[in-house]
Amino acid sequence: MSCDYIALANKGVQGLSPYQAGKPIAELQRELGLDHIVKLASNENPLGPSKKVLAAIEQATVDIARYPDSNGFQLKNALADKLGVSTEQITLGSGSNDVLELITRAYMGAGKSAVYSRHAFVVYSLAVQACGGRPIVTAAKDWGHDLNAMADAISDDTQLVFIANPNNPTGTAVDEATLVNFLDKVPANVMVVLDEAYIEYMDTSDADVVDGAALLQYYPNLIVTRTFSKAYGLAALRVGYALASTEITDVLNRVRAPFNVNSVALAAATAVLADDDYLQQSRQINAQGMQQLTEGFDKLGLSYIPSAGNFIAVEFKTDTAELYQKLLQQGVIVRPIGVYDMPNHLRISIGLPEENAALLAALKTIL
Amino acid sequence: MSCDYIALANKGVQGLSPYQAGKPIAELQRELGLDHIVKLASNENPLGPSKKVLAAIEQATVDIARYPDSNGFQLKNALADKLGVSTEQITLGSGSNDVLELITRAYMGAGKSAVYSRHAFVVYSLAVQACGGRPIVTAAKDWGHDLNAMADAISDDTQLVFIANPNNPTGTAVDEATLVNFLDKVPANVMVVLDEAYIEYMDTSDADVVDGAALLQYYPNLIVTRTFSKAYGLAALRVGYALASTEITDVLNRVRAPFNVNSVALAAATAVLADDDYLQQSRQINAQGMQQLTEGFDKLGLSYIPSAGNFIAVEFKTDTAELYQKLLQQGVIVRPIGVYDMPNHLRISIGLPEENAALLAALKTIL
Repeated sequence: MSCDYIALANKGVQGLSPYQAGKPIAELQRELGLDHIVKLASNENPLGPSKKVLAAIEQATVDIARYPDSNGFQLKNALADKLGVSTEQITLGSGSNDVLELITRAYMGAGKSAVYSRHAFVVYSLAVQACGGRPIVTAAKDWGHDLNAMADAISDDTQLVFIANPNNPTGTAVDEATLVNFLDKVPANVMVVLDEAYIEYMDTSDADVVDGAALLQYYPNLIVTRTFSKAYGLAALRVGYALASTEITDVLNRVRAPFNVNSVALAAATAVLADDDYLQQSRQINAQGMQQLTEGFDKLGLSYIPSAGNFIAVEFKTDTAELYQKLLQQGVIVRPIGVYDMPNHLRISIGLPEENAALLAALKTIL
Repeated sequence: MSCDYIALANKGVQGLSPYQAGKPIAELQRELGLDHIVKLASNENPLGPSKKVLAAIEQATVDIARYPDSNGFQLKNALADKLGVSTEQITLGSGSNDVLELITRAYMGAGKSAVYSRHAFVVYSLAVQACGGRPIVTAAKDWGHDLNAMADAISDDTQLVFIANPNNPTGTAVDEATLVNFLDKVPANVMVVLDEAYIEYMDTSDADVVDGAALLQYYPNLIVTRTFSKAYGLAALRVGYALASTEITDVLNRVRAPFNVNSVALAAATAVLADDDYLQQSRQINAQGMQQLTEGFDKLGLSYIPSAGNFIAVEFKTDTAELYQKLLQQGVIVRPIGVYDMPNHLRISIGLPEENAALLAALKTIL
């Protein structure tokens, strides 16, 4: 005797569509038998890993039959030193995806709502729905977050507000004054999740640029999330973190799986955090690539949303499904973003000069 | 203005005490400044990693700036080939801890209950509580699961039953006939989670020994969970999996974080799965160590629970808190299991011959 095991699942889970990842290079190779493939689909660091990371990994592999340090002692201390917070304010996660899920599992559920913007990072919607929370989606303003609309949307049952800065996939960012004005309006019992996955691509020494870590002391309801998957070049290993008050951090650590960050990731993240040259180089190759691509798009007469991240959303006049397939045939993987209500855009990650050139050449051939 | 961010958390989360991991070697070194430390606290494989794994990791590190394959194509295919299931029946997890949490997040919640045994693996209780489910804890029989009592305990709102075979920390196992009799009694709408984290230490070719994978075709409500953290020696990397019907697997993959298994782990697990010699050696060193330790305990006049795993629960006449500390002073880390309602036992992992000898010598000195 069997029964309907989908209908038995929790309501929020029944309606979930799994996250659509960027197509892996190996998958396209299997499908099309292509030799040379350019992947600009997942906002990965085109430089590859830092040399210091490779040395740290080699050392860590000796011990891989042992469980990771559940408390992430070394990485937390390195982060605390660098960011001027205490280790009791840090929650480590398997990428910032994990940390975002920990927040919703701890604070979201039936009878509670979460506010986020149209075109915002899709994991907010997935995590809120999986927990049975009620989503409140505000309209976008120039493709970015409309913080006034978001403040107005906060309801009596609202527990979380998600702000991606810069936002993926639009690349839009809010300035410090606008964010502070927003935070001043949010009631203390509503927590604001500031997702800074791409913050390392911005210049936080600029007074207009938000630095979430520096705001923590003023807003006990603020949670800042960050990742090692982007500018730090460790997407494969899965490390991210949240910064928050010690109380919120205590709660997040209660729902955290005890060994959610693997040993190789802990060692690699600790190593790259000390590698300022690598981060500098990541920023530089990104700035150059952004210029190369936007100049190329201009020549092709394509419009795009100015981006603060390591990717750019380019507008085409029609649904991009066919164009995406044609680019795959040319060995170039980009990201369709219909799931973000942007069916006429493609999100293109900034690559190495030759990768960017290959994308531009493929677009020219097709268009 | 601030507020109580612990009271704002979901009810189940408020009462959670985080999982207590075995003390890491580095932590004891920091605390006591000891040079030589023996860790028999986390049921890790004392052999260290397979040589084939080290080669696979070296290859995988080239690509660590890229996201992992979200679908785990190669590992799933290797598992499907080895276990005689389809890839649509496999859910990959960051250790079997992750898979156990995915199951509770998909199927457990307020208004639903889960049945598990006293002294059973503590993650069942933590995961059920985090989701707001109601725990139904049955009495143990000879320290093991009483499957008749568990069948009787199933209530109208029961959605999950957890069986650890062998169980951690008791090492007890149920035989095939008893389990099949139990499964025949469980209603189809109640799902049975058979946690086989330690199954590779048993001889599943023996007709009395349960092989969960072989039972799947008969019980569509069965979910089998396994791990690469024990006999396969990859605890640091976090890889486990669930085997179930395609319907249940579909549901679990909806709640799964898209990149929950990192690339190094995927590569290492695929490599060790093909390394029969390593698995054979793991079993052999475990059987020898088990004999060495039980003979030693016999000489010391200590009783213990006969174990089918890579660990053994040893009984002392009083609370073991003090003994645990004294063993730390001698540089030996074992596992107190008060959290399992077993304050008079210590769980000791099977180590290499010299590690087992060090533990026995330390016990002799102290007792």
